[in-house]
Amino acid sequence: MTEKLVVIGGVAAGLSAASAAKRLKKDRMNAVVFEKSGYISYGACSEPYFISGLVPEPEDLIEVTPEEFEQKRSIPIRRLHEVVDIDYKNGYVTVDDLIGHRSFKEPFDFLMISTGALGKGLGVEGEQLRGVHTLRTVEDAIAIRQSTLNSEDVVICGGGYIGLEMAEAFVAMGKRVTILKKTSQMLLNFDPDMSALVDEEVKSKGVTITTGIDILSIEGSERVERVATNAGKVKAETVLIAKGALPNVSLAKGIGVEIGSTGAIAVNKRQETNLPHVYAGGDCAEAYHIISRKPAYIPLGTTANKAGRVAGENIGGLHTEFPGIVGTAVSKIFDLEVARTGLSTKEANLYGFDVYANTVRHRSRSKHYPGGYSITVHLITEKGTGKLLGAQMIGREGVAHRIDVLAAALQAGMTVDDVYHLDLGYAPPFAPAWDPILIAANTARKAS
Amino acid sequence: MTEKLVVIGGVAAGLSAASAAKRLKKDRMNAVVFEKSGYISYGACSEPYFISGLVPEPEDLIEVTPEEFEQKRSIPIRRLHEVVDIDYKNGYVTVDDLIGHRSFKEPFDFLMISTGALGKGLGVEGEQLRGVHTLRTVEDAIAIRQSTLNSEDVVICGGGYIGLEMAEAFVAMGKRVTILKKTSQMLLNFDPDMSALVDEEVKSKGVTITTGIDILSIEGSERVERVATNAGKVKAETVLIAKGALPNVSLAKGIGVEIGSTGAIAVNKRQETNLPHVYAGGDCAEAYHIISRKPAYIPLGTTANKAGRVAGENIGGLHTEFPGIVGTAVSKIFDLEVARTGLSTKEANLYGFDVYANTVRHRSRSKHYPGGYSITVHLITEKGTGKLLGAQMIGREGVAHRIDVLAAALQAGMTVDDVYHLDLGYAPPFAPAWDPILIAANTARKAS
Repeated sequence: MTEKLVVIGGVAAGLSAASAAKRLKKDRMNAVVFEKSGYISYGACSEPYFISGLVPEPEDLIEVTPEEFEQKRSIPIRRLHEVVDIDYKNGYVTVDDLIGHRSFKEPFDFLMISTGALGKGLGVEGEQLRGVHTLRTVEDAIAIRQSTLNSEDVVICGGGYIGLEMAEAFVAMGKRVTILKKTSQMLLNFDPDMSALVDEEVKSKGVTITTGIDILSIEGSERVERVATNAGKVKAETVLIAKGALPNVSLAKGIGVEIGSTGAIAVNKRQETNLPHVYAGGDCAEAYHIISRKPAYIPLGTTANKAGRVAGENIGGLHTEFPGIVGTAVSKIFDLEVARTGLSTKEANLYGFDVYANTVRHRSRSKHYPGGYSITVHLITEKGTGKLLGAQMIGREGVAHRIDVLAAALQAGMTVDDVYHLDLGYAPPFAPAWDPILIAANTARKAS
Repeated sequence: MTEKLVVIGGVAAGLSAASAAKRLKKDRMNAVVFEKSGYISYGACSEPYFISGLVPEPEDLIEVTPEEFEQKRSIPIRRLHEVVDIDYKNGYVTVDDLIGHRSFKEPFDFLMISTGALGKGLGVEGEQLRGVHTLRTVEDAIAIRQSTLNSEDVVICGGGYIGLEMAEAFVAMGKRVTILKKTSQMLLNFDPDMSALVDEEVKSKGVTITTGIDILSIEGSERVERVATNAGKVKAETVLIAKGALPNVSLAKGIGVEIGSTGAIAVNKRQETNLPHVYAGGDCAEAYHIISRKPAYIPLGTTANKAGRVAGENIGGLHTEFPGIVGTAVSKIFDLEVARTGLSTKEANLYGFDVYANTVRHRSRSKHYPGGYSITVHLITEKGTGKLLGAQMIGREGVAHRIDVLAAALQAGMTVDDVYHLDLGYAPPFAPAWDPILIAANTARKAS
């Protein structure tokens, strides 16, 4: 008997699951992927570079084409097909074909829910005006690029990774950019002294950052013209709402899939939901956080890839587990490499850890070699045990991969004393003899 | 009573030891550092960049000046002072003052032996001719720079890091460069398929590599003119002998300090030799290798810094240990970042490990972001256990710090399955969603 896997959502998690399951079960399983947008397998993290024009075509955002999936992996891909309902008891989904304008039922033995996330809205009037956007899909990116071409003033609501990467993109396009924020801190999953370094950089590139802002409404006749706030009106021909992601769990909820305390789908390490034969992963699901030892909602492509593959392996008959995440994230914000892993001080406190945080600045390269910049390394250490709980790093070079050393250290459960003793490479063009990581760990081990 | 620490050798290990001990014991200890050359605290790894002219002055190679040591750390520095004899029983050293041309005795309670290493010679006639060099000290670097300025043809004997970094330096100076080697493989602590990538790069820059060479003699009247080999004579106005380092242990041997099987001074994790109150560290000493679980001789500045600090801490009254090394080394060779950590296949076999080695090529950045190169990642895994034993990585970007992730993994005792599950950062300008490290680990875990 041939089994049937239905995958809802054709980006990182869904396609990884379909590929892994099909590879294992081959002819014993048929898989089909329904994706409501017109694109699958896209690198959402690269969308800002498409919008700015650095990446020329939407097709350049695609990792694996539908043709490759269909021909090489024997997985039919149904784009512009939206799953609108699941009948779990009878084992089928209802699909709206957005091209053919018809609806049909598709039976399943296994279901992979990889419905992703939605951009949070503002919940104010005028949000539906032309020129007001969120950024998730390739279609969003295309719309923003189109919309911004003739705009002079762009307003970004929110100061997370997407907001700041898009600030860079808009500046590269020659736009006047204003970031409106409620809280005084950007990048809320960094400690305040670290995110302040990013503020400086963003402001130095001509971006206006205004904090303490409540957005009251978005104004305009057909297209957005102004954003009305508690501090007055701000001119804008394009508005990007970048307030973060909301897990898209409505279909899952509808069939009684358990939702975790984070609001995303609860899964075990095999990516199983509470319902037999129903798996989930990616931006709609939680992941186990190795440091807090609690489920977390940190929607990122790397996690989606891994979780999807684990789901697919289990659907494919293996018993594999996703050990979890430590919350590593890297971003290029103008000329800065901005990176974090583990828990911030605030997060660590929330989870009941008593922590010591320290910050050091040290050279990215040997002082005997031309060039190089100063890197700021920030460590969060548990008092008493000396266990490393988190790290943040900002600099103009040598940050993006150095953070991974600390991600590995976190995953290994290292103390800052262990980190201090790491045998890190030294060559003048790339690092000083005492690497910034070792300098930071030395300070932390003495103090914590 | 004030104690007296005599440090023999004023570079990484010796100065780290003096600083740590003095910081701990303050007025209860006097320390003095004797350095036979005219420079202390220099970055030997940067010497090739001084020779090529990228680093303008010899002083630019200095990490901490003698004045800073004397004024800020209260440690007298005696340059051009050579310790020629140790009377361990009576607790003094005999010092030749090479400036004042006098000899004197200096008493000690603690002795730090940080006598470094000597460049291996060829043991052939003509080695003493002008224009024939080894590279260890700043004086060597100055002499090579001077010597090479009017040379057209430069011959390098040896194909290790120093030989290859110097090949780059000589090419940058516009010289015709020939590397003469006995074995067919360069960089012998890499696996052959990896070092072959470096060969390609070096040749593509116009360097002639000739292998299977026995050097018979160096010819010339006053200055070198030719290198005579089993394959004929090679024109050369400058010859660099880069055959590796020999630990400088004669003083230590003279007083009965135990020499290990590697030929370097045997020390425990506190950097103690077999003689009470006599410590050693740096390029004259062994270090414990965490993966082979045996003493190793891998003379590098990072190890010297750490070993010296541990020696100083123990001299200073603490009980601290140097957990050891995993053999991480990074080098820039022309446009390549070349890095390794842990054991090579050959080394692993020597230590009795049954290994599986695999190589993958993957992008340094996301394919959705402009630029980027392919990185070659090579993992050495223990069969059966899946334990990571070593890693090598070569590419035009993103290698120098990525290797440190695997150094941390080695130090944590990770399996390749653990490495595959690392939560590494992803951002299109810096890494693909599946980092090359994860791709390599995934192949290794399936096979080993």
